[in-house]
Amino acid sequence: MQAKLTIDLNAICDNWRALDALSAQSVETGAVIKADAYGLGANIVGPALAAAGVKTFFVAQAEEGVVLRRAIGAGPRIFNFSGLMAGDQQALDEYNVIPVLNSVAQINAFKTGRCAVQFDSGMNRLGLEPAEVAKLTGKIAALGPELVISHLACADEPDHSMNTAQLAGFRAMSVDFPKTAKSLAATGGVLLGSDYHYDLTRPGIGLYGGLPFVGAKPVVVLDLPVIQVRDVLVGETVGYGNNWTAGKTTKIATVSGGYADGILRSSGSANLYADGVACPIVGRVSMDLITVDVSALKTVPPMLSLLNNVQTVDVLADHAGTIGYEILTGLGARYKCRYIGGS
Amino acid sequence: MQAKLTIDLNAICDNWRALDALSAQSVETGAVIKADAYGLGANIVGPALAAAGVKTFFVAQAEEGVVLRRAIGAGPRIFNFSGLMAGDQQALDEYNVIPVLNSVAQINAFKTGRCAVQFDSGMNRLGLEPAEVAKLTGKIAALGPELVISHLACADEPDHSMNTAQLAGFRAMSVDFPKTAKSLAATGGVLLGSDYHYDLTRPGIGLYGGLPFVGAKPVVVLDLPVIQVRDVLVGETVGYGNNWTAGKTTKIATVSGGYADGILRSSGSANLYADGVACPIVGRVSMDLITVDVSALKTVPPMLSLLNNVQTVDVLADHAGTIGYEILTGLGARYKCRYIGGS
Repeated sequence: MQAKLTIDLNAICDNWRALDALSAQSVETGAVIKADAYGLGANIVGPALAAAGVKTFFVAQAEEGVVLRRAIGAGPRIFNFSGLMAGDQQALDEYNVIPVLNSVAQINAFKTGRCAVQFDSGMNRLGLEPAEVAKLTGKIAALGPELVISHLACADEPDHSMNTAQLAGFRAMSVDFPKTAKSLAATGGVLLGSDYHYDLTRPGIGLYGGLPFVGAKPVVVLDLPVIQVRDVLVGETVGYGNNWTAGKTTKIATVSGGYADGILRSSGSANLYADGVACPIVGRVSMDLITVDVSALKTVPPMLSLLNNVQTVDVLADHAGTIGYEILTGLGARYKCRYIGGS
Repeated sequence: MQAKLTIDLNAICDNWRALDALSAQSVETGAVIKADAYGLGANIVGPALAAAGVKTFFVAQAEEGVVLRRAIGAGPRIFNFSGLMAGDQQALDEYNVIPVLNSVAQINAFKTGRCAVQFDSGMNRLGLEPAEVAKLTGKIAALGPELVISHLACADEPDHSMNTAQLAGFRAMSVDFPKTAKSLAATGGVLLGSDYHYDLTRPGIGLYGGLPFVGAKPVVVLDLPVIQVRDVLVGETVGYGNNWTAGKTTKIATVSGGYADGILRSSGSANLYADGVACPIVGRVSMDLITVDVSALKTVPPMLSLLNNVQTVDVLADHAGTIGYEILTGLGARYKCRYIGGS
C-alpha cells in the first residue's frame, strides 16, 4: 500500500480565478506550471487550467514545454523561462514553445520566430541588464517579442523597497517598447497591486495553495498508511540515533512515508493528523518510515494525514525550516495520486 | 537543455563487492534497492547488481517489488520491508515478492507462502517485540520464514552502546529459530564486524557511495547547465530576498537546477565546480535556478558540476544540514540520466 496524494483541481482553478479577479479585466492572468506544476503534475493540472480559461502558460525548461504542449493541445501559449539553451531550438519549434530570451548570447543565438525577452530589473538572475537593453533596443524591437518580462526578488515582502525599485527599473527599461505587452508580477506581484500588473500576470505558488496568497484554497491532502502500532515503555527509544526517548508509555504508529517521498528530514517537529487530532512525529524521519505518537487516539485509523487544511504546505514548511514551494516541489514519486474536480 | 545526472553502475557494483568482501565467504551479501535504488533507478541498478552476483534484494513497498521484479526477472529473491499491508497480497503473490512480516497483525493477516519476519531489537520502528516473539514462537516457526531480520538504530556510530544492546537483543529473540537464516546488518552493521553479519547482510547506502562506508566509490556526477553569465557590480544584490550583496564586481552564472530538482534550499553554502575549481553558490537556491560566483574562472564552461568526486553526496549533505541518503533520494525527475558501466 502506498501513501495517497489527493490533488484538488477545483481548488487550483478557484485559486487562479481568485488571483485573476485581483487585476483589472484588461489584464490577462497566465499560469506558471514549471517544475511539473510545482510537483502536482503538469499533464493533469495544465489541461484543467486551460479548461478554466488560462491562455498563457510558463515553464522553466524546453523539455517541460514539450510535456505541457502534448497535454494541452495547440491552443494556449507556452513561454519557456530559460529561453533558448543549446539543443533547445528543435523542441521549441516543433512544440510551439516560445523562448523568453534572457541574455545577449541568447538573442544572438535566436534566429527567428515567436519570442519574449526578459529584462533584469535588479534580481541579477535571468534577463538583460539595463545597459544591454539600451544598446540592443533596435534589435529587440526587430525581433517583435510578444512579451517583455521581469521578475521581482522581494514580492513576498510588500514593504520592501526593492519592489518599487524594480518597478521603476522595469518601467525605465521598457519605455522604448510602448506597443509590446509587458509582465512583471508573479503571485506576490499580483498582491502588490495594479501598478505591478501590466498586461499579463503569471501566478505560480498561489495557484497551488501557497503563501504569499493568504486567501488560497489548500490544494493537496497527503495520507500516509499505518504499517504497525506498538506501545513503547518509559525509557525506550525510537528511531535512528535513539533520538527520542519515551517519558511515559506511548503508543507509536510507524507509517509508510519518509524523506525519499519528499517529507524533509528536517520536518520532525510536524504532526500527523487523524480526524483533526494532532499526533506528533517522534524520532527521526527516515527514508521510508515515520514514527508518530498516536497516544491521543482511541483507535488508530488506516491512514494518518501529513498535509491537510490544518497542516498546509506552509505550516509543514515552517516545521521543516523552508517554504511551501519546496514542500510542494519535493513531493515524491511513490505516492498514489488521485485528482479530484476539474472539468 | 536539462541538467545531466551520470550514474556509475560499475562503482555501485564495486561498492557491493567491497562490502561483500568484508564478511566471510559463508555470509550472503544482499542489496537494498528501496526508494528507487536510493533515487538512482531500481530498474537499471537492479539488473546491474543482479549481473554482479546479487541474489537477494530488499525494497520498502510491495509496489517497488513489482517494478524490481519486472526489471530483474525471475531469479533473485525480493523481500519487502513493509511486509503485508492491506491490498498488497495480490502483487506480492503475482510478482513473487516476499513480505517481511512486522507485527502480530501482519502475521495474522498472512495466509501462506514465502515470508520473512522482523524482530524489533530496540529501534521501535518495525518488527515484533520480544514478548510477542516469545508468545508466537510456534506460530512463527510454522510459517517457515526464509529469514528473520532486525535493524540497527545507531550503526553509523560504532561505539554506541545501542549496537551491542541490539545485538544481544536479536540473539536472544532468535535463539528459538536455530535453523532459520538471520540478518541484522545494513551498511553500518557490515562495518561493525563479523558478530553483526549473521547469514545475510543487506547494504544500501554503501552501494550508492555514501557514508558510513568511508571506502565507497562515488557513484553520481551532477552537471548543471549555465543559462547566463553577468557581471554584478558592488552593492548589487542577487536572488530572492536580496540575500547576497556583491562586495566587489563579481561574475555571476545562473545555472539550470534548483530545489525542484532536489537541490535542497538549505544547501546555499555549497559550491559548483568547473574542472576542480570551486565556485560558491551566492543568493538563495530557487526552484529552477541557482546563482554562482564564477569570478575565479577564466572561461565559464557550458556546465558546472554540483556532485562529483570532490563534492560528494556527503559533502553536499553537510552543506545542507542533512545526510547523504537524503541528497540521493531527493534527486529529482528533471535530470537527463546517463548510466555508465554495468555488464
